[in-house]
Amino acid sequence: MNEFELIARFFQRAPRSADVRVGIGDDAAVIAPTPGMEYAVTVDMLVEGRHFAVGADPRRLGHKALAVNLSDLAAMGAMPRYVLLAGALPGADEAWVTAFMGGFDALARQYDVELVGGDTTRGPRNLCITAIGELPAGSALTRAGANPGDRVYVSGSLGDAALALAVAAGKTEVDARSRAALAHRLDAPEPRVALGVALRGIASAAIDVSDGLAGDLGHIVDMSKVGAALSLAAVPCAPSLRAKLAGTHKEREIALQCVLAGGDDYELLFTAPPPLGERIEALALALRLPLTAIGEVTAEPGIVVRDERGDRLAALPHAFDHFR
Amino acid sequence: MNEFELIARFFQRAPRSADVRVGIGDDAAVIAPTPGMEYAVTVDMLVEGRHFAVGADPRRLGHKALAVNLSDLAAMGAMPRYVLLAGALPGADEAWVTAFMGGFDALARQYDVELVGGDTTRGPRNLCITAIGELPAGSALTRAGANPGDRVYVSGSLGDAALALAVAAGKTEVDARSRAALAHRLDAPEPRVALGVALRGIASAAIDVSDGLAGDLGHIVDMSKVGAALSLAAVPCAPSLRAKLAGTHKEREIALQCVLAGGDDYELLFTAPPPLGERIEALALALRLPLTAIGEVTAEPGIVVRDERGDRLAALPHAFDHFR
Repeated sequence: MNEFELIARFFQRAPRSADVRVGIGDDAAVIAPTPGMEYAVTVDMLVEGRHFAVGADPRRLGHKALAVNLSDLAAMGAMPRYVLLAGALPGADEAWVTAFMGGFDALARQYDVELVGGDTTRGPRNLCITAIGELPAGSALTRAGANPGDRVYVSGSLGDAALALAVAAGKTEVDARSRAALAHRLDAPEPRVALGVALRGIASAAIDVSDGLAGDLGHIVDMSKVGAALSLAAVPCAPSLRAKLAGTHKEREIALQCVLAGGDDYELLFTAPPPLGERIEALALALRLPLTAIGEVTAEPGIVVRDERGDRLAALPHAFDHFR
Repeated sequence: MNEFELIARFFQRAPRSADVRVGIGDDAAVIAPTPGMEYAVTVDMLVEGRHFAVGADPRRLGHKALAVNLSDLAAMGAMPRYVLLAGALPGADEAWVTAFMGGFDALARQYDVELVGGDTTRGPRNLCITAIGELPAGSALTRAGANPGDRVYVSGSLGDAALALAVAAGKTEVDARSRAALAHRLDAPEPRVALGVALRGIASAAIDVSDGLAGDLGHIVDMSKVGAALSLAAVPCAPSLRAKLAGTHKEREIALQCVLAGGDDYELLFTAPPPLGERIEALALALRLPLTAIGEVTAEPGIVVRDERGDRLAALPHAFDHFR
């Protein structure tokens, strides 16, 4: 199968939305904006051996590669619309591409996201996805709007994906059922698209948790020129992770790392003024997704995390840094 | 230098255009469309050892990586506006990034293109650029509009970059002055942005020559459901290449390969009805860029190339295929 056959077979498709004026198969896609809307645009690059293991399941990878981009759009309050997929592959492996596109397309269909462009080449496996979302003019949720007195919320639970990695690396153990649940969180994160859209006009600032709670909340407080105080006991996490927090010193250290610095959960972390608490509770019910208040925004800069006894944690784990 | 310092130092910058509502440093960029305009979006991935040599000059690479994307936008008739840059690097090499961004930014400034997003990670060197351009609704130049009787035009000259590669590979020789001129064409292609914009309403179909004349004209005739007849003698090429066409059998074979299948020139190939010939001549003068009629669109499918004596070439060289 050559490059053009590969494109024709797996990537070329008739535009579904009338807003796609020119789809895959020309020098560029052409899209028509909806009047009154703005576009959010994000790009993520996933490298084999770094973001995913050699031999990783291609179907799960297709899901995850798109999910991390949709998560970025969700964190802006944008509705995903279009995606471009560039990939380097060691060879034209039909089975691999079929499985990868299976996972990718299934998630794209779920959110009615349309593949409008791409590029394929040979090289060390690398997947680069550009996602474009739409939002009403002026409604973007940025990292810069948090105000002292706002509550800090997080969706779902934190640290699951990091604990799955720690278990896989043999650093700690969990029972078989927890292990499967954690692995699912790592391999098949659900982008919080509906939540992001619903938070327009409610959240004062938002980010998706990809580098870990401490690091990502750090981005919000830096951009908003505020600080935050968190309660560790309030942070939602899986029962297996909660148990480790109450375990031996070594187990607790691993658990703290997962909860505070574990990336890859792709939950939304956001701030909102306390009077909006009821609307957020209603949203949690409607979305069947826990939205938990874990602390508050402070005027003094920096992040303070208080442990189960109310004592301040001496040091916070670092966010993941690709060049460290 | 860690990942965040790298981003802060080389990539983060205040938005210049008021249309950039949120720039680098959030989960996604937010851009406000201009009423009445549509958006062209394209992505290209460049892999070390494939699209550029190990040890390639990073400043030239920064120029070229952006140029190939602007060329795709030009082929749609779009004015480039925004760009996102994702890159995998073997390490946080300040000197390399400084030089790369020097070449990238110089070209971006030339066309007032704004960097609005990106991603950096460690991995085998790979650069993935997404470019977004603007064009009046309905004015996109696609590959699908060529009609029988239209003339086929090409900008600049063809085969220079391919001849530079052939010379570098020791397959053939040219004098030192030609060598420098050819190498410049390979290393620092000029995207035909002004030409692409000017061709709105004139060209019936357009593409940029990245895979070679025969292959890229093949895309136009396939999408337009037409054919084309070209005159080899009319195809504009450098004097050193023209000389090889008139040289030994071996030299002529290399030259034919360069002229008909040499990619990397990033000229525009377009079709237009004969009555617009005068406007195209005027455009060539205004842009100080040769725009040469090299053949015509035919009703019968396929591409016929006639040699200097009017005889039909038996076989056409193939376009470059990354998976062959």
